[in-house]
Amino acid sequence: MAQGSDEVIHTVRFNQLKSVEHLKKFAESPLDLRKEGVLTPARLMKFSTEAGGYKLLYGTEKVTEEVMQALFDLAKERCVLEEMQRMQSGEIVNRIEGFPSEDRAALHTATRDFFEQPQMAPQAREAAELARKEVDKLKIFMEKIDRDNTFNDLIVIGIGGSDLGPKALYLALQYLQKEDRSIHFICNIDPDDAAQALRGVNLKKSLVLTVSKSGTTLETLTNEALVRAHFVESGLKPEEHFVSISTPGSPLDDRNKYLECFHMWDWIGGRYSATSMGGGVLLSFMFGFEVYWGLLKGANAMDKVALVKDLHHNLPLIGALLAIWNHNFLGYPTLALIPYAQPLSRFSAHIQQVEMESNGKRIDRQGLPVDFQTAPVIWGEPGSSAQHSFFQLIHQGTATIPLEFIGYKEGQSDKDFIMNGTSSHEKLLSNLFAQALALALGQQSDNPNQVFPGNTPSHILLGKTLNPYSLGALLSYFEHKAVFQGFVWNINSFDQEGVQLGKRLANQVLECFAARKGSTKTPHYSYPLGEAFLKHLDTLT
Amino acid sequence: MAQGSDEVIHTVRFNQLKSVEHLKKFAESPLDLRKEGVLTPARLMKFSTEAGGYKLLYGTEKVTEEVMQALFDLAKERCVLEEMQRMQSGEIVNRIEGFPSEDRAALHTATRDFFEQPQMAPQAREAAELARKEVDKLKIFMEKIDRDNTFNDLIVIGIGGSDLGPKALYLALQYLQKEDRSIHFICNIDPDDAAQALRGVNLKKSLVLTVSKSGTTLETLTNEALVRAHFVESGLKPEEHFVSISTPGSPLDDRNKYLECFHMWDWIGGRYSATSMGGGVLLSFMFGFEVYWGLLKGANAMDKVALVKDLHHNLPLIGALLAIWNHNFLGYPTLALIPYAQPLSRFSAHIQQVEMESNGKRIDRQGLPVDFQTAPVIWGEPGSSAQHSFFQLIHQGTATIPLEFIGYKEGQSDKDFIMNGTSSHEKLLSNLFAQALALALGQQSDNPNQVFPGNTPSHILLGKTLNPYSLGALLSYFEHKAVFQGFVWNINSFDQEGVQLGKRLANQVLECFAARKGSTKTPHYSYPLGEAFLKHLDTLT
Repeated sequence: MAQGSDEVIHTVRFNQLKSVEHLKKFAESPLDLRKEGVLTPARLMKFSTEAGGYKLLYGTEKVTEEVMQALFDLAKERCVLEEMQRMQSGEIVNRIEGFPSEDRAALHTATRDFFEQPQMAPQAREAAELARKEVDKLKIFMEKIDRDNTFNDLIVIGIGGSDLGPKALYLALQYLQKEDRSIHFICNIDPDDAAQALRGVNLKKSLVLTVSKSGTTLETLTNEALVRAHFVESGLKPEEHFVSISTPGSPLDDRNKYLECFHMWDWIGGRYSATSMGGGVLLSFMFGFEVYWGLLKGANAMDKVALVKDLHHNLPLIGALLAIWNHNFLGYPTLALIPYAQPLSRFSAHIQQVEMESNGKRIDRQGLPVDFQTAPVIWGEPGSSAQHSFFQLIHQGTATIPLEFIGYKEGQSDKDFIMNGTSSHEKLLSNLFAQALALALGQQSDNPNQVFPGNTPSHILLGKTLNPYSLGALLSYFEHKAVFQGFVWNINSFDQEGVQLGKRLANQVLECFAARKGSTKTPHYSYPLGEAFLKHLDTLT
Repeated sequence: MAQGSDEVIHTVRFNQLKSVEHLKKFAESPLDLRKEGVLTPARLMKFSTEAGGYKLLYGTEKVTEEVMQALFDLAKERCVLEEMQRMQSGEIVNRIEGFPSEDRAALHTATRDFFEQPQMAPQAREAAELARKEVDKLKIFMEKIDRDNTFNDLIVIGIGGSDLGPKALYLALQYLQKEDRSIHFICNIDPDDAAQALRGVNLKKSLVLTVSKSGTTLETLTNEALVRAHFVESGLKPEEHFVSISTPGSPLDDRNKYLECFHMWDWIGGRYSATSMGGGVLLSFMFGFEVYWGLLKGANAMDKVALVKDLHHNLPLIGALLAIWNHNFLGYPTLALIPYAQPLSRFSAHIQQVEMESNGKRIDRQGLPVDFQTAPVIWGEPGSSAQHSFFQLIHQGTATIPLEFIGYKEGQSDKDFIMNGTSSHEKLLSNLFAQALALALGQQSDNPNQVFPGNTPSHILLGKTLNPYSLGALLSYFEHKAVFQGFVWNINSFDQEGVQLGKRLANQVLECFAARKGSTKTPHYSYPLGEAFLKHLDTLT
């Protein structure tokens, strides 16, 4: 797609920005949440905003009105709303100026731009039309599958973005699962992964979904060949069971080998592909097409929120700015993402990828090394369980860990349970709110082991209930939060050069294995460092 | 149990230790792994050691012989071997001097001290005898279960240490699962967790296991009551389906309510309880008693390694010292634990708890605030999958993240798959070794986006294959690694006061919920900060 005319080129470096100077000043004496009179009900009401079905409650962050204003100034200095508009319009945002780079759009928002007020730029419309065709194709395909009742099991083969996002979404909506369906994921090159996934599966009733944007991912192609071999051994024809998702023209885009070939395009990054066919096929198979449609609708609604010009109501932007305040100005190196909702058990693992792969960068979009910290380490597990695990360190360790909580007013199931006058869901919410307060307030004590230093910042993203729509909005919130951070940092959040070196060296070590068998074309291949590791394998007792 | 006479009291503070002074000096100009001639095959051979079925390959750590010697000196100054012997002998190691504390032994090693050269101290022998009785009781119980063929499904209710460890072990050994058995975990107070776990389960054929050391854990008791209600609704008698694990005399230790009551004791911390009945019942039900027995044997073997006086062969101690070098001296705030073995998919989550709950502390054993960093944030997911996720940040982000890898010479399944002349397992190992090399060496390039700074330290724990024995050894390795770090830091690795404040405040918020219904004893209860959050719930649109 053509480059837009309204491109934003940042000539001022991060540490030279006026707003950054102000924020550094504020960070010298940040708000102390423990101080008498700071954390009040009024503050909890004031530092909150709502859009896209979520409230963002950030009264327990170490921000004042002045800090928020400076953060908004930072967003303006970096033209992040214009950048977001450019991205959603299909301008080329995946680029490093002056160096070979992917040089293309990042149009994951187009995979759900089918509702009110769609983007009007030609690139975005063209992309949305392509995406919509796949959605329609999927609907028809699923109707046929359901009518013929051919398949009960789905085997999904994909890695990274083709695995983490779809898996997290699947787990989040399991309460909607069709009774006669089950799913098996294969992601790892480890053959024990495939062995476990295939254990006891009736291949005759299995649909296999292979997902690789390029159609060349080593792990995925190997695992697909492995599964194909199982089908052939069982006397089954793979072409009657396998479907693929890849870019048009890829080795996987072949109707001779696949029952159906679904498409994604180079303008969707793997980690941003959960609302494309990458999520669509499996969500539709497991839950019904309408569930996938609901997800798209919710994601699209939050895409709109990310464009809202009144910054006080732009939730993903506020999320991004709070993270930047904590990371770049208060200097906290990690961030815990804690959903108080067990169905979001793998959501943190997905967002870990979205943020760390997008923003784990060290050069800006002009190719210059950055002189500040980009993405923090993001990690987390669901509460209340996590309270019985690593929360000890968060309360009483030596590091300060900012937290992002997610919670819902109501549960998914109607099977809430009353004990001692309150329901389990009320107990869950009480724990969520109590953690935000306990972390902020701390506790004094004469017993040093009962001292809680407090002053740990957190915020809560609060929704009504976790359903397809609100899940789509949540996903989109975190996608845009990552992208907004990238815009503020002036880095390219859409490539991933960092995987290449390991791939190259892995091939060199693999040659060592091959050379031992004499099956390689270069039988005298030698990579001494690889050989040293192989020697360790030999001498294990 | 009585306090030992050979107690170690540290009067010298960490930052005053001679070895610490030396290490700080070395840390000013640490080894640069990228430098010509540093990372050689000879180095990879030299910086390695083997014991308990594992090799520890640490040639890719930023250590020299001098650094290792200073680290061993640190271990000696802190008398960590004597401390380990004290712990395994049943001396009181869970204590803060001069303040009320749990004041007891930490004898998780006694739960597997049934093999060669057992501990001879009376406390340890008494504990091992108690533990052995439970093991024998379990064996008989399981023989009856298998003979009667009463149960196919196991529902496990537990949280924190009663959940993460057993679940990680279960997943690691799934290849051994009996064909007719399945398992369902309920940990979270979130009622959606129980709803999902119970979905489609045939209660008539279900055994329920409730695990709570104290017998008073809110989440676990609530979930048990919920599951009991389901049984009663289905016309089933809970006392014919439920078994419990708790301390003798706890509310769960009641044969009128349970088919069988298994025991643990206050000298086993929750996070160290995976080899007690906490892991034993479920592993025996799912895989057979002999699998649990194999696990105990392997764990016991590594317990012995932790006592080895030749520090060059004390694997858990070397692991602890390398972590301390990276964290306290090189200043890296987090640590990624990456098993190249998909069956270890939840092992990092368990070790996250073991290390962060044990060592996320801010006072030493004399009650004085520490003036150094205790436990880092530990996080991680399995490779090779993780290479397609957050490894981008590890290779090209702005933070340095030390890594601990785990790998095995052979897979569990005999279904390895050959493609292009090498097997999937060889591809897995090639990726593992290549990552250690790529992270250390980095890459120069004229394209700034293809520059990899390198010099990132890592090490590999390499075993022959992942089976019950080697899994036990691995678990014990990490338990002792955590404990050794605690000994060096002179902190109490066995308590968890940090959970208390959240519990207290959660009860206050819960009172707000109860007060609204008028069902509380204090109808005019008011907790204004809690009310503010409840008001946010009310006004969600």
